[in-house]
Amino acid sequence: MSSEETNQSCHTNENGEHRSSHHSENVKKNLVTRLNRIEGQIRGIKSLIEKDTYCDDVITQISATQAALNSVGKLLLEGHLRSCVVERIQDGDEEIVDELLVTIQRLMKK
Amino acid sequence: MSSEETNQSCHTNENGEHRSSHHSENVKKNLVTRLNRIEGQIRGIKSLIEKDTYCDDVITQISATQAALNSVGKLLLEGHLRSCVVERIQDGDEEIVDELLVTIQRLMKK
Amino acid sequence: MSSEETNQSCHTNENGEHRSSHHSENVKKNLVTRLNRIEGQIRGIKSLIEKDTYCDDVITQISATQAALNSVGKLLLEGHLRSCVVERIQDGDEEIVDELLVTIQRLMKK
Amino acid sequence: MSSEETNQSCHTNENGEHRSSHHSENVKKNLVTRLNRIEGQIRGIKSLIEKDTYCDDVITQISATQAALNSVGKLLLEGHLRSCVVERIQDGDEEIVDELLVTIQRLMKK
Repeated sequence: MSSEETNQSCHTNENGEHRSSHHSENVKKNLVTRLNRIEGQIRGIKSLIEKDTYCDDVITQISATQAALNSVGKLLLEGHLRSCVVERIQDGDEEIVDELLVTIQRLMKK
Repeated sequence: MSSEETNQSCHTNENGEHRSSHHSENVKKNLVTRLNRIEGQIRGIKSLIEKDTYCDDVITQISATQAALNSVGKLLLEGHLRSCVVERIQDGDEEIVDELLVTIQRLMKK
Repeated sequence: MSSEETNQSCHTNENGEHRSSHHSENVKKNLVTRLNRIEGQIRGIKSLIEKDTYCDDVITQISATQAALNSVGKLLLEGHLRSCVVERIQDGDEEIVDELLVTIQRLMKK
Repeated sequence: MSSEETNQSCHTNENGEHRSSHHSENVKKNLVTRLNRIEGQIRGIKSLIEKDTYCDDVITQISATQAALNSVGKLLLEGHLRSCVVERIQDGDEEIVDELLVTIQRLMKK
């Protein structure tokens, strides 16, 4: 992922409650394109089930969709690490590490 | 999952090339309902990204969607095992085990 | 895996309580060799920790060991499917499928 | 994990080539105890295989060992994040993030 693609900024208000992440237009477009494709895959799977497609072939489509969704998760994690996590650690806020550990755990469990 | 829910039949033509899996109406409805919900989750994630939601919160939604998709994969695997795999092994066709190993591998890699 | 390598037989006593799996000498040797190597990897990791090795390098060794252990799990699952599962399904005992689903689930969660 | 337990320091020489991670005596002891237990589990699995234990029961032991090894991996990742990653980001070295992404990826693939 080029630095331009991960160009992202992280905003937190003073009490740390309202946070937002601004992705560059390129990154947003990339993520939305991927999510549109995943939406199409899900619709495809529904149609396979309705047409009584052999279940092993349906499972193959499920795992392709899981892989695509995992890629989106990894891109978001990468953007998060490179922006919010780095920024907040540089600001001396090490609590972000607790949050990050929970997030990584969650992505690992799947 | 009740036996009624997994009630599924497996059809293969003589040369084994055209196979199909017929799920009962209940199972189909269950799977399609789950996939509709996943489609909604994907659309929700797109909207979170467009609204600059904090990336850690987006990742949380991604892992919820991954969990939902995994459940569909497991239901399909269960149906597959209980119908096609059992039927074909009882018919003396042990090649289904090779296919099954590839499928399980694929679901494990995610 | 050659058929010779997976040559395994499955024994269950009448009430289904005392079950055993007899692997061929080749398979046993293969599995024990792999497990010996994993034991060596674990000892290696302990020594890395005691020598204050950079933690990222230790984690790399951990994931290599995880991969080796997963391979043993997959070999055992394959042997199990090709012997006990096939035999018991052919004997009309479909309860093995419930057990198998739990096992696959467990290996997937890791 | 208490802060005392993760008390770890990270050393890199000037050209960044010789790095080391010093865990506190408590953390070392905790990690080594866990690894000793895992070594015992591996030896136990070998003995199960040699005694022709039912393969599903062996697989159960494999997944318990995988879980124990994953825990060690997570503890090391946590220590790594809280020490080396935080220190190096605070020193302005963002390359650690590239390394970290590779490491997380590796732990996710398992």
